[in-house]
Formats: sequence, structure tokens, C-alpha cells
Amino acid sequence: MNAPYPAHAPLPEALAEALAARFGERFSRGEAVRAHHGKDESAHPPAPPDAVVFPESTAEVAEVVRACRAHHVPVIAFGAGTSLEGHVLAVRGGVCVDLSRMNRVLAIRAADLDATVEAGVTRKQLNQALHDTGLFFPIDPGADATLGGMAATRASGTNAVRYGTMRENVLNARVVLADGSIVKTGTRAKKSAAGYDLTRLFIGSEGTLGIMTEITVRLYPVPEAISSAVCVFPSMDVAVDTVIQTIQLGVPVARIELLDRLAIAAINRYSKTSLREGPTLFFEFHGSPAAVAEQAQAVQELASGHGGLDFEWATRPEDRSRLWQARHDAYYACLGLRPGARSLTTDVCVPISRLADCIGETAADIAQSGLLAPLVGHVGDGNFHLVLLVDPADPAEMAHAHAFAGRLAARALRMEGTCTGEHGIGIGKQGFLAAEHGAAIEVMRAIKRAIDPENLFNPGKVLPEP
Amino acid sequence: MNAPYPAHAPLPEALAEALAARFGERFSRGEAVRAHHGKDESAHPPAPPDAVVFPESTAEVAEVVRACRAHHVPVIAFGAGTSLEGHVLAVRGGVCVDLSRMNRVLAIRAADLDATVEAGVTRKQLNQALHDTGLFFPIDPGADATLGGMAATRASGTNAVRYGTMRENVLNARVVLADGSIVKTGTRAKKSAAGYDLTRLFIGSEGTLGIMTEITVRLYPVPEAISSAVCVFPSMDVAVDTVIQTIQLGVPVARIELLDRLAIAAINRYSKTSLREGPTLFFEFHGSPAAVAEQAQAVQELASGHGGLDFEWATRPEDRSRLWQARHDAYYACLGLRPGARSLTTDVCVPISRLADCIGETAADIAQSGLLAPLVGHVGDGNFHLVLLVDPADPAEMAHAHAFAGRLAARALRMEGTCTGEHGIGIGKQGFLAAEHGAAIEVMRAIKRAIDPENLFNPGKVLPEP
Repeated sequence: MNAPYPAHAPLPEALAEALAARFGERFSRGEAVRAHHGKDESAHPPAPPDAVVFPESTAEVAEVVRACRAHHVPVIAFGAGTSLEGHVLAVRGGVCVDLSRMNRVLAIRAADLDATVEAGVTRKQLNQALHDTGLFFPIDPGADATLGGMAATRASGTNAVRYGTMRENVLNARVVLADGSIVKTGTRAKKSAAGYDLTRLFIGSEGTLGIMTEITVRLYPVPEAISSAVCVFPSMDVAVDTVIQTIQLGVPVARIELLDRLAIAAINRYSKTSLREGPTLFFEFHGSPAAVAEQAQAVQELASGHGGLDFEWATRPEDRSRLWQARHDAYYACLGLRPGARSLTTDVCVPISRLADCIGETAADIAQSGLLAPLVGHVGDGNFHLVLLVDPADPAEMAHAHAFAGRLAARALRMEGTCTGEHGIGIGKQGFLAAEHGAAIEVMRAIKRAIDPENLFNPGKVLPEP
Repeated sequence: MNAPYPAHAPLPEALAEALAARFGERFSRGEAVRAHHGKDESAHPPAPPDAVVFPESTAEVAEVVRACRAHHVPVIAFGAGTSLEGHVLAVRGGVCVDLSRMNRVLAIRAADLDATVEAGVTRKQLNQALHDTGLFFPIDPGADATLGGMAATRASGTNAVRYGTMRENVLNARVVLADGSIVKTGTRAKKSAAGYDLTRLFIGSEGTLGIMTEITVRLYPVPEAISSAVCVFPSMDVAVDTVIQTIQLGVPVARIELLDRLAIAAINRYSKTSLREGPTLFFEFHGSPAAVAEQAQAVQELASGHGGLDFEWATRPEDRSRLWQARHDAYYACLGLRPGARSLTTDVCVPISRLADCIGETAADIAQSGLLAPLVGHVGDGNFHLVLLVDPADPAEMAHAHAFAGRLAARALRMEGTCTGEHGIGIGKQGFLAAEHGAAIEVMRAIKRAIDPENLFNPGKVLPEP
């Protein structure tokens, strides 16, 4: 089998010795450790780093960066390894900086609705720490990712309709730059007009401009009440129309998720349920008890006007869990449609008026291609995923799947959307990035050269080779 | 009187002739036109450009940029001239690009809740165009600024508590770069993880990185119902505590404004009213009729628990207008405290837990300084303005006022806030920018050099001289 990535120079022994001397057993060249850090949850072939360091402070991260820079060796930041586009793969070798030991919640400031965490804190860990405060951190990409990784990939998930993405929810970050200096990108002020928006520049930069070591995020009051609703529709079009009208009416929905018929069939098989197999919307509303009841009723009226079937809504936690169970099971149920397969997960996001068209054309493409690809969508944002069930060991099948993903990305761009709503570019979508941004990609390249002139940080990611 | 800005080379005649030949009467070197374009609403001494061009398309803006670049002549974008930190002043001469003729609303897409406008469209013009759609654009900085200017300064205003600032409400911009090329920064997708966040980089860059010529903004449904409430408090501390608890309870407030005792006294004098003179909060709630009633009642309970007096709330438009009249009159009423004075308006923004402290220390400073400075605050965001009434012709008084503003900015930074919540840096706050960002200012400088290597765009703004 051919190596999937170009060969690279071995780790300089002088660097290895220096890092080993400095970090002791927190420095590793062991095969298992390297293998663990050379993959994520994507179907991309793994690419282990040459070594892994486990720093415990920002100053230690800066030390590693300075040492690697002196030897012109790449530095790749690693959180939980749950990214989906090969972000953490050491495609040009180098030293992986595993931030999982930087997992302290540094401050929770209830009055200000913010918290400062080290980059290795996961979202579940943060919410656990918030347990008695009446506050929560809403961004939920599914996996229990680290806050650093979520910031680096501009993650979002089901709650983005109401609470936004990492873009809207990071106030400030502490960043180690390529020269080993340490800067902060903002303050704890809710808004600021002070200079260029460095916070937003580092969010979504996928470790290519610096390493975020501390993050200050916004928190929200746990809603007084939550209601959930589920409804099956006779077609995708009317399901999407129901969503559009819900948003246009100003119903402050927290989540709106869509599963297609195949995804529901997968769930029936996986969970031994007998749900009606059709496009299904899952809603969640946050607010006062009166407000969430009113919101669920408004959506029920809209849904029934669009031919919605089996509408159910609930406010008690156990009833809400039952209604949303299918959504929570969706990913593993989809994988269960083809045991042993990996998922090549697409991630387009389009203006909501084009969502039904985009899904319709894509469904026709799937039918023609003979691919097995259930759909799961964050439909309130116009973002949907196809879980393409593929065998990474079969090059022809992978080529077929990638060609489909390319057509889908092109379709989304034609509809004024993006090739990636929340997963990022990594190594998997660089061609789409160029198509999406056109000449603006040269602005990105200029920024990369200006901030990381030696291409030290996560080389081979985000920006396609010129 | 000494010239307030350094001397600069005159406009090259070859450039003037080329622009005159190309733009005819849409090119002007007339003194009145230049004077109009050499000032904003700040107290900074004016600095007229050497000439003004009135382009009517993005392509024309690019032509001007290319022509100026060929002669190494600065280019300054101009919208409505309502900025507050000298952003549009031609402190190094050059050609002003007045975008007011680029005032077409290009598209309103109700289903997508977005609109694309040319940069010269004002916020009131956009809302007029939205009149029959059931949608509105919420960002309201007070002045009828252009959308281009608002994007360039990362403007916000009273609605930011609920709807965010320009940072959260621009989806995409078309930008003319220093080489005359034209790029777009994003798509119309609600969220994206595709590459560096160029949209956020240009927002708030104050015309120093490129000229935004078209902007796609988010729209919102006009609320089904609006309620307003006003309440006077015995002290600043309890007024601010009421705000903190309102937000912690998750009451989805649209606006919360604060006026201090002096501002209310100014209004009584200006509007011949007899309002109780004390710190006063103004609330507005958006939602369904039941929701806004519930919200007003929740706030009433909190306010009365904090000793609030004269609580009034209303839902009918005429009653709401009456309650908010004092807030709307505030700026001119404050100016009326000292006829003929200009306002040096401060703009710090701090974490809300520090707001009472920050206001308290500042009030003591005002008392010691003998300054006349009523307070108007977007208190839900931790942002407040002091309207320092000054005589720009009196250097000693200006120095006294600037020293006070410097102490206030330092105080906000010490409290983990920012020197400017919404007005920007311009020429007035460059020293504070350096204090706020520390070493990160070098990252901003690197970006500026990378994107505008010849310092063509709005030189002398945002970044202090190294």
C-alpha cells in the first residue's frame, strides 16, 4: 500500500533529546502514543506525529514551540482527537502538543456569565463544573471535545440556532505564537471595538496560526423550562417550510433537527422502535414554563398546516428524553446500517430558502450513485450532514464517495452556502475552500505567512498548496 | 494655532487629472466638499482630504484604489461621517472615497432573514425598505450611519443585549483590497467553518485593511409585541444589581439602558419634565404578548426587591414612547447642560460584575476633576458613555478631559474590560489600544502589513506608530 502522505525528515535527535530532558515521561516517542495522536474520527488515513509532549501550562507550550522552531519542526495541537477532517494528523511529521493535561477550570464568574478554562477542558467537564451555578455552556458538537479543539475548529452543533457557535461564544483566548510569545486576543468585555478581531481570527484557524491554551467562554442561564416536540412530515419540502416559517415567526427555538426517512429506518432497526419512517423534525424550546408551552403550540399549528403527522410535545425530562431518543441514537444507528463501515461525513450549510432544493438534488444524486447515506441536519441553520457509509480500504468506493461529496459541496456553493458549516477544512476540504473563497484565499495565505512565517503550526491544513 | 496633524505631500496633479477625467463632477477638490469630508461627530480637529470621489459601483471603487496606489496616495472610505473617534479624518491627506451614492438595497431575502446592501445604505434606509416584510435590522448606534461605516467600526448600540453587534450580524462583505482586487469574505450560510474568518477581520478594521462596498446582514422578525419599563433606583449599585439579576434569570431583554442622576436632571431641564432625579433604568422586551408581559413583571419584582421607585411599564406604542422619551432625548439634553460645548464621549465596557465599581470610581474621579459629564449606559453589555462637555478651543480643558478619559480607560482595563465597546479606536484611542492588547498589537501590525503593505488605507488610524 502506498503511503498516503509525502515523506518527511525524521525528528532531529537533538530536539528529541532536549524535549525528553525537559519533559521526562511527559515526552513520548512510543508507537502506541504516536498512533493514538495520529488519527481523528474521520475516514482519513492516520498520520502519527514523530513525538508527543504533554505540557501542563502555557509556559510549557511556549517552550515546546520555541524548541521545535529552532529545529524547523512542525507543531500540531491535539485536544480530544474528535475532529472530522483530519485536523490533528501529522501529515508532515513533527511534534504533537497534547493539551489534555491542561484541563483546569480556572474561573467561573456567575455574575458575568463567563468562565475561563484551559484548552484541554472538555465541554462535559465544563458543564459538570457549572452544575451548581444555574448556568451552562450550550455549544454541543456531539463528541465530548475539548474547548480548545472546539474553538480551533469553530464548532457548533444542535444548539447553534439559539446560542450561536464558538464564533459567538468565545470572549478571549490566550495564544502561544510561532516565536513562543504569549498573547491574549481580547478581554472579558461582552463587546469591543478595539482593533482587529484577533479572537475571531484564531477561532477556526485549526491550529495553523498559534496554539490556544486558555479560553474564556460565555455562559447562559439554565432555562427555567424546556419543551420538546417531534413531528413526521410527508416530504422534505414541507418539513423545511415548517422550519422556515417557525423562524420567520420569531419563535425562539433552541434546536431544530431533521432526520430523513433512511435515518429513521436505521433507528427503527438499531433501537427496535417502530417510528413512522419519514422526514422527522425534532424541536426544543427554552424559556419560562408559559413561554415554552406557547412556543410548542405555535409550532404544532405550523406543522399541522404543513401536513405534519404524529405531533408530540413534552416538558417533563423523561418524556423529552423519549421524544429525542431517536435523534440521540442517530449517528450509531446510521453506522449500524453497514457494520464495519466508516463514515465520510459531509457538512454543507446553505441559506435556509435553498435547503429543500439542496437536499432534493442531493437525494437524487445519492439515488443515482447507489450510496448508502442517511441524513442528519441542523436544519435551523441550513446545515446538514450525510453519513456516507464507506469502506476506507476500497479505493474505488472512496473515490466514488469523494466525487459525490465534491458535487455536494459545489451544489452548496452554487446556492450561496458553504462547504463546511461546522467541521472545518483540515486536509479533507482544501479544494472546496479555494472554490468557496476565490481570490480571498490569497488574503488567508498572506495572514498565515504574516503570523506563522515558517509554517510551523499544523502545516498542510486549511490552505491548499499554492 | 499649530496644525494638529503632521504636514503631508500635496495630491499629485497627475492623479487629480486622471480622477477628474474619469469621474467628472463626481470628483471634487472644492473646499466645502473637502471640509465636509474632513470631520466626524467627535471633538477631534478636522483634517480635510485633498480630494473626494463619489463612486457608484465596486468596480469604480477599485479603479480609485488602483489609481491612488500608483501614486502612493492614501485612500479614506467615508459613509455618513457620524463616527466618534476621528475615523474619517484625512490626517495624512489623500483621497476620500465617499460611498453615499452606493446606496442601493440589492436584495432582501425574507425566507433567509438576510439582506444585501451597498455600503452607503443607512440603517434607517434599510429599515424603510424592510417596512412591508415583517422583518427589521436591529443594530442602532443612534446616528443614521451607513451599514458600511457601522461594519467598519463594529458598531452596536441599544439593541446589542439581545441582537448582538455588527460582529454577529454581518454574513458576508465585498471588499476592495489594496491591489484593487475585489473579494468576498464569506457566503450567505448562517454559519461556516471554512478557513480564516475574514468577515470578522474586516468588521472593525476601520477602513485600514480594505473598503467594504457591499454587506450582507442578518434580519429579524419584527416582534409580535414589545413592552417597555422604566424604574428609578436609590443608587447606582442597586440599579446595576437589578440588571445582573435580570440577565442571570435569563429574561431575554432586548435593551437595558441606564441614565445617571445628572443625565435625568439634564432631561428635566431640556424637556421641561419633572422626572425623579436618580439613576434610572430603561428596559425593552420583545416577544409574544404573553412573553413580554411576563418579562416586564419579572423585572418589576426584581426592581422592587432592590428598592426601585416609580416602576412603570407599558405595551402600547404611545405609552412606550412616553416612557422612553427621556432616553431618546438624553444626548441633546446632556449637550444642553453647556451650550456651545462639544462632547468628548468615552466608551469603556467592562464585565457586568465590575460595572458598579467602575461607575463608582469614575463618579469620584468626575467629582474631583470638576468635569461636567453625565452618564448614558448600555448597561446590559457593561458599556457606558460619559458625555464630557468640553470646549475644544481650550487646550488646558481638553488636556484635563483627555487625562480623565485616560484614567477611565486604564480603570476599565484593570477590570478586564475594553477601552471601547462600540466607537472604535480611530485616532483617539491608539494609546489605549496598545495598553489593552499588549504584545498582540504586533499581530495586528503583521496583519496590516500583510494585507495593506503600502499603508494605503486610512493611514494613521487604529494602530499606533511603532
